[in-house]
Amino acid sequence: MKPVHALGVVAVGAVSLVIGILIGRYAIAPELPGWLKRMSKDGDSKYSQQLQQEIQANRIEENLRYFSSKPHIAGSPQEEDVLVNYIHKTWQTSLDGSKIYNYTVLLSYPNASDPNYVSILSSDGTESDISDKVEKILSPDQNDPTVVNPFNAYSPAGVIVGDPVYVNYGAVEDFHYLTRNLSINLTGTVAIARYGKIFRGDKVKNAQNFGCAGIILYSDPADYVAGDPDRVFPDDWWLPGTGAQRGTVLNTDGDPLTPYYPSTKSAFFLDEKDIALPLIPVTPIGYNDAAKYLSKMSGNEVPSTWKGKLSLTYRVGPGFASSYEGSKIKLYVQSYNIKKTIRNVIGFIEGQYEPDRYVVLGNHRDAWVFGAIDPSSGTAAMMELSRAMAKMLEKGWRPRRSILFCSWGAEEYGLIGSTEWVEEMGKVLGSRTVAYLNVDLSLAGNSTLRALATPILHKLLFEAAKKVENPNPEEVKAGRKTVFDTWVANMPSSHNPSVPRVGDLGSGSDYSSFLQLLGISSADVRYNYDQKKYSLSSYPMYHSVYETMDLVSRLMDRGFKYHQAVARMWGEMALTLASDVILNLDCVQYAATMQRIVDDVERVYGSLLQNNSIGLDTVKDAVVEFRTAARALQRRAEMVNKENPLEVRRINDQLMQLERAFIDPLGVAGNLYYRHVIYAPNQHNIYAASSFPGLAAAMFDIETDPDQEKRWQQVQKEISILAYTISSAAATMQDPGHIGAAGTQY
Amino acid sequence: MKPVHALGVVAVGAVSLVIGILIGRYAIAPELPGWLKRMSKDGDSKYSQQLQQEIQANRIEENLRYFSSKPHIAGSPQEEDVLVNYIHKTWQTSLDGSKIYNYTVLLSYPNASDPNYVSILSSDGTESDISDKVEKILSPDQNDPTVVNPFNAYSPAGVIVGDPVYVNYGAVEDFHYLTRNLSINLTGTVAIARYGKIFRGDKVKNAQNFGCAGIILYSDPADYVAGDPDRVFPDDWWLPGTGAQRGTVLNTDGDPLTPYYPSTKSAFFLDEKDIALPLIPVTPIGYNDAAKYLSKMSGNEVPSTWKGKLSLTYRVGPGFASSYEGSKIKLYVQSYNIKKTIRNVIGFIEGQYEPDRYVVLGNHRDAWVFGAIDPSSGTAAMMELSRAMAKMLEKGWRPRRSILFCSWGAEEYGLIGSTEWVEEMGKVLGSRTVAYLNVDLSLAGNSTLRALATPILHKLLFEAAKKVENPNPEEVKAGRKTVFDTWVANMPSSHNPSVPRVGDLGSGSDYSSFLQLLGISSADVRYNYDQKKYSLSSYPMYHSVYETMDLVSRLMDRGFKYHQAVARMWGEMALTLASDVILNLDCVQYAATMQRIVDDVERVYGSLLQNNSIGLDTVKDAVVEFRTAARALQRRAEMVNKENPLEVRRINDQLMQLERAFIDPLGVAGNLYYRHVIYAPNQHNIYAASSFPGLAAAMFDIETDPDQEKRWQQVQKEISILAYTISSAAATMQDPGHIGAAGTQY
Repeated sequence: MKPVHALGVVAVGAVSLVIGILIGRYAIAPELPGWLKRMSKDGDSKYSQQLQQEIQANRIEENLRYFSSKPHIAGSPQEEDVLVNYIHKTWQTSLDGSKIYNYTVLLSYPNASDPNYVSILSSDGTESDISDKVEKILSPDQNDPTVVNPFNAYSPAGVIVGDPVYVNYGAVEDFHYLTRNLSINLTGTVAIARYGKIFRGDKVKNAQNFGCAGIILYSDPADYVAGDPDRVFPDDWWLPGTGAQRGTVLNTDGDPLTPYYPSTKSAFFLDEKDIALPLIPVTPIGYNDAAKYLSKMSGNEVPSTWKGKLSLTYRVGPGFASSYEGSKIKLYVQSYNIKKTIRNVIGFIEGQYEPDRYVVLGNHRDAWVFGAIDPSSGTAAMMELSRAMAKMLEKGWRPRRSILFCSWGAEEYGLIGSTEWVEEMGKVLGSRTVAYLNVDLSLAGNSTLRALATPILHKLLFEAAKKVENPNPEEVKAGRKTVFDTWVANMPSSHNPSVPRVGDLGSGSDYSSFLQLLGISSADVRYNYDQKKYSLSSYPMYHSVYETMDLVSRLMDRGFKYHQAVARMWGEMALTLASDVILNLDCVQYAATMQRIVDDVERVYGSLLQNNSIGLDTVKDAVVEFRTAARALQRRAEMVNKENPLEVRRINDQLMQLERAFIDPLGVAGNLYYRHVIYAPNQHNIYAASSFPGLAAAMFDIETDPDQEKRWQQVQKEISILAYTISSAAATMQDPGHIGAAGTQY
Repeated sequence: MKPVHALGVVAVGAVSLVIGILIGRYAIAPELPGWLKRMSKDGDSKYSQQLQQEIQANRIEENLRYFSSKPHIAGSPQEEDVLVNYIHKTWQTSLDGSKIYNYTVLLSYPNASDPNYVSILSSDGTESDISDKVEKILSPDQNDPTVVNPFNAYSPAGVIVGDPVYVNYGAVEDFHYLTRNLSINLTGTVAIARYGKIFRGDKVKNAQNFGCAGIILYSDPADYVAGDPDRVFPDDWWLPGTGAQRGTVLNTDGDPLTPYYPSTKSAFFLDEKDIALPLIPVTPIGYNDAAKYLSKMSGNEVPSTWKGKLSLTYRVGPGFASSYEGSKIKLYVQSYNIKKTIRNVIGFIEGQYEPDRYVVLGNHRDAWVFGAIDPSSGTAAMMELSRAMAKMLEKGWRPRRSILFCSWGAEEYGLIGSTEWVEEMGKVLGSRTVAYLNVDLSLAGNSTLRALATPILHKLLFEAAKKVENPNPEEVKAGRKTVFDTWVANMPSSHNPSVPRVGDLGSGSDYSSFLQLLGISSADVRYNYDQKKYSLSSYPMYHSVYETMDLVSRLMDRGFKYHQAVARMWGEMALTLASDVILNLDCVQYAATMQRIVDDVERVYGSLLQNNSIGLDTVKDAVVEFRTAARALQRRAEMVNKENPLEVRRINDQLMQLERAFIDPLGVAGNLYYRHVIYAPNQHNIYAASSFPGLAAAMFDIETDPDQEKRWQQVQKEISILAYTISSAAATMQDPGHIGAAGTQY
């Protein structure tokens, strides 16, 4: 071999180096820039573990102790100053920011110096059997000068004297039974309705529509005591006879003075006389008091399904038995409405790559009294979740999308805080919100998770529940290691027993405006009692003075592991939605659910429709169109090139916007509070969801309508709106580059 | 120097090469991948030049010859089969696709065997002065068996005999003059109104509201002949006395049988008796016929502003002069309504990087007769523009965003095709459409460009006009080389003479539903006659049988250079919106315009408002908020990192969605056809735009309202809606990562 010069070696080396650099730089497919690589990756699963570990039961317990230490009814200084400022400051220092939103809205309170009550007024004018004006204090922690006595918000003031009539749950069917089957004239009577089954505002509306002059609401042991009736609170978690359920009887969402617009400083406030407030006085009482009146009633014995569990013979009335001849029931209500300022606090974490996509978490803050369950068990979880995320931010974590924490005011009065905010911020939220995840309260019991959600979120719920440790050691011992395992074992879906049943969203909590006004996919989760075991209308102490820290920490969640599980579940869902490159939203599930709704409609109304020569073919065709489009979108989502941010965004926008397509700006059956054509609150029970609500409303009791032609035209119109809306939603899922492929062309 | 081994040299070379490759690949900031680089670049200006060169005047001329060769009224075979199929096939083969959308809608036609007319009926029952039942054919090209005689669509059939009353333009003010100043009882009379100033449907509505039993519409030379009255068509382009203006008198948009929903196969069709069709017969006549009736009228001479240019003494009536005692005017209408299928054709070019962003171009296809101006001059331009773009596609060009070409059916009847499509595809269009660019007709004259647009598109209009060669050689000689130069010289903005005046969008063409139902930023352009020189209500031959190829090619655009300029202008705007990385949408201009509207409102209504203790402070504050947010968004747009596709998309979404924020789903002043809170058609003239239309409607003639309290409450409500909407729009422009910063918090 021939030796060469060292200079030559250097030259060769230098030339090779340059050639190498050029090859490395240009000839090899270039490496993606780091930011683009990171943008193309799903959230690291280590963050999920970090978050779950960070969420601590004892901190939730501390939070709950703080939040439930004093009554904090909407409009009170404790609620609007102390708690608002605490949350605001916490978020302002730990998250990327926090803001307070104020709204001046109509609230309602009982008159502290002239309390509401019920009594029997004899013909000589003497009053007896006067109901408790305050709930009996059973232990010192319930004693606070700011406790507000039992009342129903927005009841007009008034003194009503009349014959009592027992109306069971006060449902339309109950009133029909009294008027149609028993031919009772209800005009001027005072209805006594038991709480449960349907939203209390609907009971009042029905009583009013059927001519009653007033209505008394009471909690029957049949619906609030599922154990030994002699072992009630404070011995067990069952409602004592001295407890009364507060609650609003407003049938609309948001400040009633500013329908559809926010109650900001530039708002136009309607006059109280021009809005749909209840027109008859109403007040809640406990079952000890109710027994005094029910036991003295005259009239037929009630049918078996109307019987409660008080030791008396339930009779419908009207009026008292002959031994009380001339006696009437007296309803004395001195509540008043007043404009007050209520507040929302919104804390936020700014997303790294898509700050303009929002995962919104919310819980209300206002309580009727101490609110240790409703809502502070949820608030305690939310504060811990936000603390855990703040901790992760400190360590360098930042989600792809923004996360918002919302603490709502005045939910109890009619979802006022959340509705006003959705009205104010709707333009922003509608185009950017991925989903709204609500926790009204963390637990109504400690048996199993319970979730309500639109179908597009079912998969996310299941996946999250599978990642959360089971808080019940007995269940873990039985092999059910995760929240999901107990959930699916306790309440398997009737369609597919390998997944749990997820309920539909009615109204009754703050998801309502997100879903109904904007079409934002929503969910609500909590731990619940075992509904198979206990036939309760809600957790027993609901909205009573006994909803205290003592109740929760002693009888419902010792150790706060169930609260912890809910916070983890909530966090897991938020993390997934905020981190995954492709949104975990399941459009195909929506198609399947819609098909089942059509089948249900066919089963229930099929022959009635057929008899009137009305078919569902257009709706069925639209559902097929929807399914085809959903499957195609899912395929495109699976095959997306994650390194192309615009392709990713395109798919995500379609997934995120799908639920928007179900919104009809004209409202469902003309009701502008509810605009979601597939699910809306039942027209006779705001708490419950109605599927295809416009059609359901048109079909309700149709046989008795004197104007058959008009009603059946309404049915046809609703079918047409369904077909249009579903088809329209299908079009949003089709390949956006081929807009021409949608619709009715050939 | 010490010699080394060749093997060593090879080794050094190899090692250096590898090191080089590694450096090139990893140590140097990696080159962006090619696709990402391309995605970060604005459209190449060479494409703008290519497009302009490709658009050829002689091809537009050929197109117009084809499209105007036969009458093509909505619902006719020529319109729905021949032309639809021609366009569909053209686009199917040259673009990425084309689809036909069918709608079954209510149309209206005169009875061919029993034509409409007007006459004088004497007391002995004889008829005289019978109006022309057909327009006189002046040259063979106007002669076609499918010409439909003059009529007003949706007039009910009926024979009305009554006293004639001359009502000037038939505006509300005109009727007020007759009833308030002259105390004329209009009940049962037959109004004679001249065409012009306001939409004809409003004239009919007013006549109906003021008690008239029928109405005759005629074209006065004052409004349709601005030159020598003895040199009219075919000698010049002025309307001859035998021409009559057809046109719809429907006051709503879209198929009247399916308000707010599409007339697809699943639609629910209202009954004709349940919809707002005109209730009194109406027919159009030429001025030769009108003179016969007007010359015989009794009553006061009209005020000077009411005088037309017929050689007669204009009198208001009611009734004929005493020499015709007992004579009445007779209105004979046998038109009928019928459901027919109409069609839209949608052709599309799929965008390369953002196929889910649509730049939508549209023109209607249906004409009252030959439609050589309205709409085929626009159709001819659109077909040439689509051909030019197809040619560029062949050569490898592809825009960043999708471009849609829309050929609308049944526009003349009430914007039916476009409205039905917007109703059907609204969910898709609302979230994806960048802008809608309409050309109803290419030219109404050859003096200057005329544009209507929302403020956000003004800048784009100006920039495009600066790039298009002036079609007028005289103007070029005078130093005005571009379309912009003549435009700004002819109609400078009163606020800023360095830019031309752009009009506001009322209704009257297919942008209406895009803007009013969905809040899609829209524009409409055409070449126009010189409005300073000629006081015309429209181009003279508007909707008459004389709107032929001969008129256009001989008297209005010899050589088709003006058509070409419009097509180039249109293409330039589309290309810019479809290609620029950051959308050319000017949010700051919207702020400036809004400020001027507030100033105008203050000027016009300020003292009246003040006298009623109503202020505009909340609106002013909102405008300031809006301006601040607009400026901040503009700054962010200027500083955006174009290489980050998600950052780009974020800004673009905010720009694109700004106009959406002006939509109130509850409609303006309760009118669900018009939902844009800043601009909507004037409540008394659909053609004209009203700024702050809700407030304008509330203030109109407020002094005479007997219920002052209610009216002023309405004013306050409208002010509140304005403040809310503008503030809401401001919130959409704020940094999306800081949602908490918007709204009314502290």
